[in-house]
Amino acid sequence: MSRLVMKFGGTSVADLDRIRRVAALVAAETAAGRRVAVVVSAMAGKTNELVAWTDGAGEAIADLPVSDDEYDTVVASGEQVTAGLLAMTLRNMGVSARSWMGWQIPIITDEAHGRARIDEIPGEALGAALDGGEVAVIAGFQGVTRDGRISTLGRGGSDTTAVAIAAAIKANCCDIYTDVDGVYTTDPRIESKARRLARISYEEMLEMASLGAKVLHTRSVEMAMAHGVPVRVLSSFVEPGQAGEMGTIVCDEEEIVEKRIVSGVAFSRDEAKISLFGLPDHPGVSSEIFGRLADANVNVDMIVQSHAHREGAANMEFTVGKRDSARALEIVRGAKDVIGFDDVAVNDDVAKVSVIGVGMRSHAGVAKTMFGALAEKGVNIQVISTSEIKISVLIDSAYTELAVRALHAAYGLDQL
Amino acid sequence: MSRLVMKFGGTSVADLDRIRRVAALVAAETAAGRRVAVVVSAMAGKTNELVAWTDGAGEAIADLPVSDDEYDTVVASGEQVTAGLLAMTLRNMGVSARSWMGWQIPIITDEAHGRARIDEIPGEALGAALDGGEVAVIAGFQGVTRDGRISTLGRGGSDTTAVAIAAAIKANCCDIYTDVDGVYTTDPRIESKARRLARISYEEMLEMASLGAKVLHTRSVEMAMAHGVPVRVLSSFVEPGQAGEMGTIVCDEEEIVEKRIVSGVAFSRDEAKISLFGLPDHPGVSSEIFGRLADANVNVDMIVQSHAHREGAANMEFTVGKRDSARALEIVRGAKDVIGFDDVAVNDDVAKVSVIGVGMRSHAGVAKTMFGALAEKGVNIQVISTSEIKISVLIDSAYTELAVRALHAAYGLDQL
Repeated sequence: MSRLVMKFGGTSVADLDRIRRVAALVAAETAAGRRVAVVVSAMAGKTNELVAWTDGAGEAIADLPVSDDEYDTVVASGEQVTAGLLAMTLRNMGVSARSWMGWQIPIITDEAHGRARIDEIPGEALGAALDGGEVAVIAGFQGVTRDGRISTLGRGGSDTTAVAIAAAIKANCCDIYTDVDGVYTTDPRIESKARRLARISYEEMLEMASLGAKVLHTRSVEMAMAHGVPVRVLSSFVEPGQAGEMGTIVCDEEEIVEKRIVSGVAFSRDEAKISLFGLPDHPGVSSEIFGRLADANVNVDMIVQSHAHREGAANMEFTVGKRDSARALEIVRGAKDVIGFDDVAVNDDVAKVSVIGVGMRSHAGVAKTMFGALAEKGVNIQVISTSEIKISVLIDSAYTELAVRALHAAYGLDQL
Repeated sequence: MSRLVMKFGGTSVADLDRIRRVAALVAAETAAGRRVAVVVSAMAGKTNELVAWTDGAGEAIADLPVSDDEYDTVVASGEQVTAGLLAMTLRNMGVSARSWMGWQIPIITDEAHGRARIDEIPGEALGAALDGGEVAVIAGFQGVTRDGRISTLGRGGSDTTAVAIAAAIKANCCDIYTDVDGVYTTDPRIESKARRLARISYEEMLEMASLGAKVLHTRSVEMAMAHGVPVRVLSSFVEPGQAGEMGTIVCDEEEIVEKRIVSGVAFSRDEAKISLFGLPDHPGVSSEIFGRLADANVNVDMIVQSHAHREGAANMEFTVGKRDSARALEIVRGAKDVIGFDDVAVNDDVAKVSVIGVGMRSHAGVAKTMFGALAEKGVNIQVISTSEIKISVLIDSAYTELAVRALHAAYGLDQL
């Protein structure tokens, strides 16, 4: 019999009515003869309530670090509640079910509380329960350390739980139910002609996820790719028979018959650009700057270096996450005497727009189309960065929507 | 080093400010050199919220029984949250602490979910942690079955957890913090001259608890008596140095030097009286009636039988819990043809008033004083029942306060 993992996020289980709706979706799958493991998040809003309490309890009387294992004990209770409620609801519909906490399966993690990584999931007990015809309702987001403490996987952790469980029980598919009905060629709120993709490769999804398409967490896509778990993104709010019912399947590139050159246009307004002017043009300068940023845990994304107007000097531009920009600026300024440069500036009004597609590997001219389309609309490109399956440009954030729509049209994504 | 269990109920941990106050009380005990295990309830109101959800999830689509193991999984999360928050707060005060869930200790229970009984608590891990100087913050009310499911002990379960933990770690005392500062000679809301008892015996406390003094749950007193755990009832709202700081110690009768004849006056309005008139006066009638009530799980408290005016016939009166009275009446009426009686009546307007004291064993005249005091105030006695250390009378509920005050004065409890 085929095994299926279904995952429901916080908005899908926000109240008892929605939990009943989820139960009906689960019951339909078991009625179709599938063995089902369901992974649930905390009811929408509950995790925030719990986190606020831990913040309050953490209001240091002394200035000690946050107690991460206790934070996890508190916050993991949210998923425990949903799992119990869904199991009860299923039973009351006549569907055999039981809840599983992280420690009951167990989902064994390392001890990095609050952002733990899964070490191991012995799938035997769970598999036996499924084979016995019982729906396994699993509390997402949580695990247990080898010394028996509750751990949590960090935000987006329930997606990761779902994929990890799918790998552990060798599920045929992992269905991630969310509030959108799939992965789109771009954000439909910006481009009404955006279309849902029937399939997308892991690699493309990874780029989409890391570039700001918030459908799936990067980490869960990485895990799905590593274990070859087919993932489907679909909406728990779409009625059977309605458009969008099938969602988007995230799978291996080989399983996508008709490959597109470009699959989607993503954008992010979460970055800031830092510009350094008049750097000394000799080896070691870059490593000095980025070494200091790395030591301070500041992630740097795009980097370009160019000759300055002054002889023997260089300019450099790089982007960091917007919330890190003030700290990055401070670090760079603090190193001014060591590095030696004329001036530094930060610009928060930038956006990164990217086109993504595995077809780029075998097709030339993708960049040319991109730059042409942007030039035609008068969009100035500040920084460019590329990977095998993606081209990103940094532009003035005021042009974001214009650029996204222009690129969406330029690659024919309107006519999928 | 002495070991101490401290238990805090829901109102004592109702918000972060109160949790900080509890942490300060715990820190004071550790600073005084004691090894402390703290047992906490869910924050006030949280259990009701969780129970309401389970009621909603249990709204049967089919008419199946409630899923008790899932109910427990949901409801036990309340104590989990408090335990984590208190452990965090203690750490932030510089006090070494960690939380313990029922399954982590483990507190092994039977499988009677929702009202589980504790089978066994292996105290080694907990004892080792305490010896290491770490405060153990224990989630009350919950345990784990032998097959790894979360169980709960039912209402009042956190008191039971505290006493059971005290027995398991051989604590010198189990301090139950509540919203009153001890056990009183009677309810101070009715008799302002009521006085706090410095000490009370387990047996007396049991009678007080089962007769409606809601300070401690009967079950926890029984367990304390069985294991010889000294329990202290005290308030978490009394400042050090204030009156009432010392609370009331519940202990073995032998440890009470000055025994009083009567320690307290208790009352309960939770009972109803059922009267059967004109019963056939032959063997088997009582067993027929009370057998049927027992089969329906209706608890019967006081029973009296008397001759009826009619030759060869008897009358019988007995009391049941008020919420069971309609059901009891129905059962008795349903057996009318089998048993044969003239008439049946139910009276909800009754109260049971009791005087309790271990000194009764060796002193005559206690009943005489009681009946005299009630007669003097014109209080008519409907039913009488006695045990070794208690005399209870059933009266018209309108006379409750009058009777309580008269008895309180008659036994000199005003002048303790």
